[in-house]
Amino acid sequence: MASGNQLVHEKLDQAVGILREQDVDLWLTLVRETLLTSDPSLDLIAGTYCAWQGAFLVSATGERIAIVGRFDVPSVEELGAYSEVVGYDESIRPALRSAIERLDPRSIALNYSESDPAADGLSHGLWLVLSETLAGSPYAGRLVSSERIVNALRGRKSPFEVARIKAAAEATEEIFEVVTRGLGPEMSELEIAALIHEEVSQRGLGYAWDRDHCPAVNAGPEKKVGHSAPGELRTRRGELLHIDFGVERDDYCSDLQRVWYCLDESETVPPPDVEQAWRALWESVDAGITALRPGVTGWEVDAAARESLVAAGYPEPMYALGHQLGRTAHDGGTVLAPRWDRYGTAPFGIVEEGNVFTVEYGTAVPGRGYVGLEEDVVVTRDGVEWLSTPQRELWLVP
Amino acid sequence: MASGNQLVHEKLDQAVGILREQDVDLWLTLVRETLLTSDPSLDLIAGTYCAWQGAFLVSATGERIAIVGRFDVPSVEELGAYSEVVGYDESIRPALRSAIERLDPRSIALNYSESDPAADGLSHGLWLVLSETLAGSPYAGRLVSSERIVNALRGRKSPFEVARIKAAAEATEEIFEVVTRGLGPEMSELEIAALIHEEVSQRGLGYAWDRDHCPAVNAGPEKKVGHSAPGELRTRRGELLHIDFGVERDDYCSDLQRVWYCLDESETVPPPDVEQAWRALWESVDAGITALRPGVTGWEVDAAARESLVAAGYPEPMYALGHQLGRTAHDGGTVLAPRWDRYGTAPFGIVEEGNVFTVEYGTAVPGRGYVGLEEDVVVTRDGVEWLSTPQRELWLVP
Repeated sequence: MASGNQLVHEKLDQAVGILREQDVDLWLTLVRETLLTSDPSLDLIAGTYCAWQGAFLVSATGERIAIVGRFDVPSVEELGAYSEVVGYDESIRPALRSAIERLDPRSIALNYSESDPAADGLSHGLWLVLSETLAGSPYAGRLVSSERIVNALRGRKSPFEVARIKAAAEATEEIFEVVTRGLGPEMSELEIAALIHEEVSQRGLGYAWDRDHCPAVNAGPEKKVGHSAPGELRTRRGELLHIDFGVERDDYCSDLQRVWYCLDESETVPPPDVEQAWRALWESVDAGITALRPGVTGWEVDAAARESLVAAGYPEPMYALGHQLGRTAHDGGTVLAPRWDRYGTAPFGIVEEGNVFTVEYGTAVPGRGYVGLEEDVVVTRDGVEWLSTPQRELWLVP
Repeated sequence: MASGNQLVHEKLDQAVGILREQDVDLWLTLVRETLLTSDPSLDLIAGTYCAWQGAFLVSATGERIAIVGRFDVPSVEELGAYSEVVGYDESIRPALRSAIERLDPRSIALNYSESDPAADGLSHGLWLVLSETLAGSPYAGRLVSSERIVNALRGRKSPFEVARIKAAAEATEEIFEVVTRGLGPEMSELEIAALIHEEVSQRGLGYAWDRDHCPAVNAGPEKKVGHSAPGELRTRRGELLHIDFGVERDDYCSDLQRVWYCLDESETVPPPDVEQAWRALWESVDAGITALRPGVTGWEVDAAARESLVAAGYPEPMYALGHQLGRTAHDGGTVLAPRWDRYGTAPFGIVEEGNVFTVEYGTAVPGRGYVGLEEDVVVTRDGVEWLSTPQRELWLVP
């Protein structure tokens, strides 16, 4: 099993290949006080934090230079992943400028992006610092976004990474099983969340997103479904319970949704309105899955699913069919999303082998609650492989 | 005890006062997918995360507008801290532009800063999005850094906040006591870190910085002191043990350093070289403490301490005497630091009543290890009050 350090080595090797493929001379990731303002790429290329300003340079020739504050030097040196580790005391600028001059790149891909949050770690203040540092040099005019590099680097998961995501999904499913055994009518969302937190804690797992909202627990039709925390609403007979939940296990995340129907005393199966919504969701997600393979754009996959759900008479979901999944629950890059402004160019990204996506749609069933399904898949050479065990049937609370 | 929500209300009220004091019409905090790229201000003004792009507007007239993705609306509404919560589906731009036009500010303080990481949450990609959104309007030319607002808002701690930091320091000191009882010769840094992690876990506390480096444990003279993780080096008779450690308790952090001397079999007190370095450190820190009061600049306080230590014949520390402390271990704003480029304008900040600072200096004692002291203080009307119990004497390992 590769350690965090091995992953950094693996990803840096991969980065050099991507630079050559994209004909970019230099990739520059500039960060500062990363406990305050994080760059998601740092986990991949350094696996440590920077207390001061730090610059990580990877060149197409294979050179890897880290310029960090004096006290950050030991942890970067321990990595053994950089051919040169330069420490500074008073200012990062002279060493940074001199490294760039020596490499003399025709193009510098920098860690900002309008479309992809995972590729947008550069703060605007640091952009100003860099602009001043390069002022008067030809390099100021050679800066471009590194979003294509980051997209490829995060998106093309190695078998090792896929195995970790699958293991996170399996742990999540184990917890769902425990929850199912513990469920009954008149349990509050908070009680259910506490049950899940206990299981996470016992297993030594982390959360795929912030603990206050992980799991999201939605009981019955009164809940405003969204990123709101579990509250005092309770499971009721004849109503739905919906949970959106993911764990972090060995640095990789899962992201799954599951639905339970709480049988009325006279019922043995869910009523037709619930069952019909569930079938329509699965039909639309299956249409998306059928479209999902290397070479298609993200928006095409979303459109296949979206059209199916709307054609079945359900409201259009105001979110994407799927996002990438990996070190973080929302792993950036290409999304399976409509061509809306807020997604920028991300829906126009091309799906690649090794991408891991969620597929997720949901809808409200009046008077019952929310049905939403979400599964995790990896894109293979000609289709997908499930990383989760799809919930094909609604689960029942007796 | 105020809850997280109450803190947000308190801070937003404070923000309106600061805007008036600084004659700024509008403070705009623009964020995106905050689980990936965080803005430290968000904890203060929203206390929740944003899955999509989000804009938080506070005007000097007291209006508070949040513009967030549809699924982020419920959690922001639940806060009850914004007079208007606007949800969007496809794009944040129309609602953002229209809110700014309606408020018609003469100046817009935006969440970027060259000098202060805690005030530099705006990503460069979002800056580009905002520039396009405001293109052709007069507002594009009215953007300034919000660093002075953020500095005041984070830096002026309420009694409630100071009490929480003090409680975090107390919890840290309790753990140091347990460590002291458990120490002996030939213990590895990793064993000592494990002991501390166990105490943190038992008390249900969090870490003031990332767990892999919290505590930093430095045993003996071979250790490269810096932000490097605990390793296989061991406590030895005649050598020093140094620990830098802080906890997060009720959302507030401590940050303390403690030193132990491991007595040689023939010794009953530390040897003169160690004792002398310890006295020199305290003399210099006390000189800084004497200078620390409202109205002085950060660099003046640092200079008082720095000159004392250098005059005593010790090497100049290549870091600041102190940083602010609060929701995060490095809380941004004014620093007690020399006027070096990497600190930007932060050393020129004016110390204010209610600021909480660390005071910390250290030095290597050849053949012994590292002595470093760090305490936490709050600035009062005419001086400081200790939030930690100063370690005036070296602790001994028998």
